[in-house]
This record gives sequence, C-alpha cells and structure tokens, in this order.
Amino acid sequence: MFDNLPKRVKVVEVGPRDGLQNEPNQVPTADKLRLIEALFDSGLPYVEVTSFVSPKWIPQLSDAGEVAEGLRSIRRNSATCLTPSFTRSTTTSCLVPNLKGYERFKTSGIDELALFMSATESHSKKNINKTIDQAFQALQEVIDAAKPDGFRIRCYVSVVFECPYEGKTEREQVLRVTERLAGMGVDEISLGDTIGAATPKDVYDIVDHVAKHVDKKHLALHFHDTRGTALANVLAGLEAGVTIFDASIGGMGGCPYAPGAAGNLATEDLVYMLHGMGIETGINLEKLVDAGAIAQEIVGHTLPGRYLKAALSTRQKTEDKAVQSCSETSAKHNCA
Amino acid sequence: MFDNLPKRVKVVEVGPRDGLQNEPNQVPTADKLRLIEALFDSGLPYVEVTSFVSPKWIPQLSDAGEVAEGLRSIRRNSATCLTPSFTRSTTTSCLVPNLKGYERFKTSGIDELALFMSATESHSKKNINKTIDQAFQALQEVIDAAKPDGFRIRCYVSVVFECPYEGKTEREQVLRVTERLAGMGVDEISLGDTIGAATPKDVYDIVDHVAKHVDKKHLALHFHDTRGTALANVLAGLEAGVTIFDASIGGMGGCPYAPGAAGNLATEDLVYMLHGMGIETGINLEKLVDAGAIAQEIVGHTLPGRYLKAALSTRQKTEDKAVQSCSETSAKHNCA
Repeated sequence: MFDNLPKRVKVVEVGPRDGLQNEPNQVPTADKLRLIEALFDSGLPYVEVTSFVSPKWIPQLSDAGEVAEGLRSIRRNSATCLTPSFTRSTTTSCLVPNLKGYERFKTSGIDELALFMSATESHSKKNINKTIDQAFQALQEVIDAAKPDGFRIRCYVSVVFECPYEGKTEREQVLRVTERLAGMGVDEISLGDTIGAATPKDVYDIVDHVAKHVDKKHLALHFHDTRGTALANVLAGLEAGVTIFDASIGGMGGCPYAPGAAGNLATEDLVYMLHGMGIETGINLEKLVDAGAIAQEIVGHTLPGRYLKAALSTRQKTEDKAVQSCSETSAKHNCA
Repeated sequence: MFDNLPKRVKVVEVGPRDGLQNEPNQVPTADKLRLIEALFDSGLPYVEVTSFVSPKWIPQLSDAGEVAEGLRSIRRNSATCLTPSFTRSTTTSCLVPNLKGYERFKTSGIDELALFMSATESHSKKNINKTIDQAFQALQEVIDAAKPDGFRIRCYVSVVFECPYEGKTEREQVLRVTERLAGMGVDEISLGDTIGAATPKDVYDIVDHVAKHVDKKHLALHFHDTRGTALANVLAGLEAGVTIFDASIGGMGGCPYAPGAAGNLATEDLVYMLHGMGIETGINLEKLVDAGAIAQEIVGHTLPGRYLKAALSTRQKTEDKAVQSCSETSAKHNCA
C-alpha cells in the first residue's frame, strides 16, 4: 500500500457554489467575495465561485453576475500591484446549466465552466426534469458553443455509487455516461457520491472500471461525508490513481434533491490528510482555516468539518491563555 | 488494493467507559445499563462497560460496582429464559488501573480487564503521574494477579502517533512499549491515536514496524476522529493486517488529558464502512443506531457520529411522512 501515491493532488474547492447554494439564507455578495478571496489566499488551485442557473431554481446564487463582477475588480486590482499574486494562480469556474447560462458565463471573466449530469434516469428526472438523453442534448449545445470559444470544461456526474431513487448504481451505466462525456470533449469528469453512501471498495472498483476506457487524468472524485466515509474513499481513490478531489470549505453543502444528504467532504480535512501523507497541494492549511472561519461567520452557524473545529478550538484556547496571562500580569502589576 | 482484506473484524465498543467518562454530567446507573443492553443487543462482540478507577479521578464512573451488579442481574435473567441470548455472546471488559482496582474487578463478573500505558514519558506523567517504568511496574502487579486467575488482558497504549507534549512519537518507542507488553503476557494491545492526529501512512508504517516483533493478531487500533481521518486510518490498518478496531457509540468521548482531543471513532461509521466492504462484524447496524439514539438521550446532547445523524434523520422523515399520511387520511375520512 502507498507505493503508488501521487506526489501532488489538485484540490477543487466547491464551497462558494455547492456549499452556499444549500444554505437556507442568501449570503450577501460582499461576504461571498470575502470568502472567495480568503480561499484564493490559501493557495487553492481551483475554486468554483458561483452558478449561472436560473434564480428561480437557486435563489441563493442569484447574484452570480455581481460575484463575477466583484472577482473582475479583485483581479484588476491585483494586476496593478505586486501583491496579492494569488488571484492569478487560482483557476475559477462556475456551473452552467444551459445555453442561456453559457451566454452569461462567456463574458463573466470566470476561467472555466462546469456542467452536470446524473448517472441514473430517476435522479436526472428529479433533479432537472430531463431524461439522461435529453440532458446530454442540452450539454452538447453548451459544449458546441464553449469549445470554439476555447474554454476548458468540467462535468459533474451525480449518484455514481448509489441513487436515492434507484439504489446501487450499475457501474456499466457510470461507464456509459463517463465515456460519452469524454467523447464530447469534456476535460474533467467529477464522479460524485451525491448521497455519501460509497465505501472504499466501491470507489476503487468504479475508478478501476471506468479507467479501462477513460484516461484517469480526466477523472476527479467528489465525496460527501454523510456516513463518515469521505476521507477513506479519497484514500481508495488515490490508490486507484485519481489525483483530483473536490471538497467544500468547512464541509458546507450537499445536494438538496438527495434525501438525507448532508455535508460535502471538508477541504481542511482533505488537505490535512494529504499533507500528512506527504502529498503536495500548494495549499496553506492555516490560511484554509482562516477561510473556514469566514465561511462559518457568513453562514451564521457551525460547519461540520472536523479539522476546522479542532483548529479553531486550539486557537481559542491559545487566545484564552494569552488573555488570562495578560490579566494575571495586570493583576500582579496592579495595572488598570 | 483490497486483495488481502480480512473476512471478519472484531469491533471493540468503548462507549460506556471511554465515552461516558468524558461526559460533563454523571449518567444514572440505570441509563448506563439500558445503553449497555442495547449495545449487547446489536450483536457487538466486545463491550468495555466501566472502569474500576478511583471515583476521585473519574467521578462519572464511580458507580462501576453498581454497573457490574446490574450486568450480573441481566445475565442471570437471560440465562433463565430463551431470549435474549446476546448477553452470552458479548464479552465484557473494564478498565483496571491498579491492584486495588483489580480486587474490585475480580469478583465483578466482568469477563476481561483492560490496562493502560502511554507511549511517551510526558503523557504518562501528565496522565497518571508516573514514568513509563513506574507505570510498567504497576501493570506488572495487576498482570501477576490476573494471569493466575485466568483472565484475558487487553492494554491501551496512548499517544502512539503524536503526543500533545512531545509532538510526533518515535516509532521505536512504540515498538519498545508494545513488545514489553506482549512479553508480559498481555493478550491484546490497542494502539491509540489519542489526539486524532494520525494519517493513513503513519498507521500503515507503525503497524508494519511493530508487527516485525509482535504478532498482528495481538494488535488493535484505536482512532479518534478529531481531524476526520479515523476511517481512512482504519482502512490503512486493515491493509496492514489488523483485524481489531475500537470505536465508541455515536463517537462519544476522547481523552480529557489531551488538549484539543474530541471524538472517538463512531461505532456506526466503522460498521457501515466494514459492511460496505463485505467485511463481517456480526453486528446489526440498525440496532446499533437504536443504541446510538439511547446514548444521545442519556447524555442529553447530539453525538458527533455521521452515520447516526443520517440514519436518525431518515427515520425522522419516515415518521413525519407516516404522521402526515395518517393525518391526511384522518382529514379525508373526517376521523377524530
């Protein structure tokens, strides 16, 4: 074991989109931008910043245009001064559901676009009211527009391991969908455990099977920690040869159309494990915790990420000690 | 990967001891017994039920004698009727810190005893105010008494991966302590990640190193989920050939002497992953969730286990639907 681990892994941060879209209250645009800047600042190589879906579907992301405008302004500012340079090293992306969304994306200044697809007919119908074939037609329209414009394209595949409506997903079905996406020119395909039901052997088996027909360099894995297995599944994915993993700051988000789903894999937990195993990410874990603290602040509640909790509790203790020692000193010296 | 997975794993439940000893309030004895019965009923092969430590140290477990008496009564009752048979298939154990504790244990009717030891001098001093050598002398006294009485002995080794006072633990030091315990006739040695800092490669490396001198069948692993890595670490342990894993119902507990430590690995998360990988445990996961619900009820707050949360939320939704459908029916039929 661990003889073939990659030297470096690409962590794809989906919090500002996949996380915030599942928050009951809409977070103000300025707060979103503050979070995204903190994520850039941590050294994350890739951040999905928003979604050009209809505000009717997801009102939480109805300010996608304003977020994009804010990011352009941040980039303009950073281009004219020496620091911060991070905004040039982080790739941004956003979700695009259809041609209408693509038109908004095209001039947004966001670097890449992300599409989505379901691995089962029932999930596709419930999620976007389209059969898989109809969904593929809609994707084809967007790809036909985006490719000549020179954009790199990512696509999420939902319910790859288990579907809340159909049970265990057939791996042949996952292969069919993934192969078709690769054939359409999609550059990165993120296989998602939407309801967090996968265990490590499932992960290894699916990747092994799909990789017979699709080059592993195009594959990413997207885990939910609903049953605590997300990091164990990452380990199986690493062993199977995948080097791109999605995660969400603090573990924000999940799919609202999947009953019982809760909690994306937390970015800090993922990065802690990868670094602990000697795998580089280019990310500063302390700065990621700063971003996690901002995420908790702007959504107004505790997030489920384990590392974040431990790190913030340690910081709090250190601060308490400092305050205590300060007041002890004050008492001894009779300061005011 | 996964070519050498064990067919069966022994899950050691430590919740009633390691979990409850860290609860701020003492849980009434009757509630403890209700939890332990539910744990037996789930098919768990091994439950650590209490600790014969001084009530001054751990007041939460000051009713150890009453718990043992209650268990004897449960066993007497189960011996005289056809069901439940579970109480005969679950091995019980309890923590014994010294000879005085052993005298109380000996006549308690509890099947096995568990000792503890630290892998670092600083943790040993902080935890029990003894050097490692002094701690070994105390253990030797208990072992000298217990072995002739025919008892099987388990021993926990704390801070095997990282010590809150010394940083990364030297693996030679872990080997020395483990080898000495094995040489003293300890039957099962549980290597503990007391502050939840280990990542999978650490686990594989330590087991691999220790197993050069101590037979793997004597080794157990005890993980904390402080940074989310517990199940990934189990996976590495399985790959390294370990077949005994400790866990705590709902993820109760942690070591109060280790700053920042929080959350044992949750038993339900462990069992879900093992079953998902086709590894037998003899445990009924649904009944384990019942026990988890009791655990939450008697401690009076939500526990951190992921699977428990998902399972109870699904049950709640099903109940809500049933109630709704019932009231819909009532409305249609104009029932009272």
